[in-house]
Amino acid sequence: MPCRLVLVSLLAATLPLISQTLPTGPHTEIEAFNLRLEQATRNMDNAAMLALWADQGISLLPSTKPIVGKAEIAAFLDNATAQIKGATMEKFEMTCHDIDISADTATEWCTEHQVVLMPGGKPPFDGRGKMLLVLKRGADAKWHLFREMWNQAESN
Amino acid sequence: MPCRLVLVSLLAATLPLISQTLPTGPHTEIEAFNLRLEQATRNMDNAAMLALWADQGISLLPSTKPIVGKAEIAAFLDNATAQIKGATMEKFEMTCHDIDISADTATEWCTEHQVVLMPGGKPPFDGRGKMLLVLKRGADAKWHLFREMWNQAESN
Repeated sequence: MPCRLVLVSLLAATLPLISQTLPTGPHTEIEAFNLRLEQATRNMDNAAMLALWADQGISLLPSTKPIVGKAEIAAFLDNATAQIKGATMEKFEMTCHDIDISADTATEWCTEHQVVLMPGGKPPFDGRGKMLLVLKRGADAKWHLFREMWNQAESN
Repeated sequence: MPCRLVLVSLLAATLPLISQTLPTGPHTEIEAFNLRLEQATRNMDNAAMLALWADQGISLLPSTKPIVGKAEIAAFLDNATAQIKGATMEKFEMTCHDIDISADTATEWCTEHQVVLMPGGKPPFDGRGKMLLVLKRGADAKWHLFREMWNQAESN
């Protein structure tokens, strides 16, 4: 009994340490990924956005040809930023739902709300949309955006 | 050596039989799923469409609230059909790309072209779109539609 007591005490003493140092599991990793995606979008930080994509990533946007591979995605982001030069993101909020993980693949769907202040006295852009995301765990053990589609949210 | 020869001959004789009777693998199964989805849509066969969905399936359509679960999907299909009563699908073509399989989850993206003849002398609807699909293998070992999003194709 004394032996067991010592063991229990040792476990009790080390558990908080273990929970701080052990990997947190794929669900928590994907929640962290979502925060990085939200922050990169909010900051209009193309380099940070691109770093979240898989090399073979595909983005499917409305009325737009499929954007296939990291090089095409980089060019699209650069072009989109150039089109709204001087604009600033006043608000970007994203909420994701129903994370589902199967081996090295995860899917989730998200809703987003963005308010972009436009230069030259143009009215701000206030838009809401939905996203379907597929994430893939890479050789670097990190999750990357593998496939993304967006469409507009319902009107209120 | 004679023994090995017999074995090789036996294998050579049975291989065609094995290839006809063994399961065909998930990639081929998903191609077959796509054909069923294409046919059900072409036939505007709501029962056949619904049979392809997972119980917890989610459909994400533009300007529409997320449609969550088979009961909501059934109601949406019934309502959509009622809205265009008398319409017939003249053409529905779907081509899917980059099937990716991870354990019980598969993803692919598709392009589609539909021409719907409308009743009452209305002009036909001729539309093109893209889809991001997530399929899940169910307890019945069959693939089902787990998540679907659609948006419009690029203009020509």
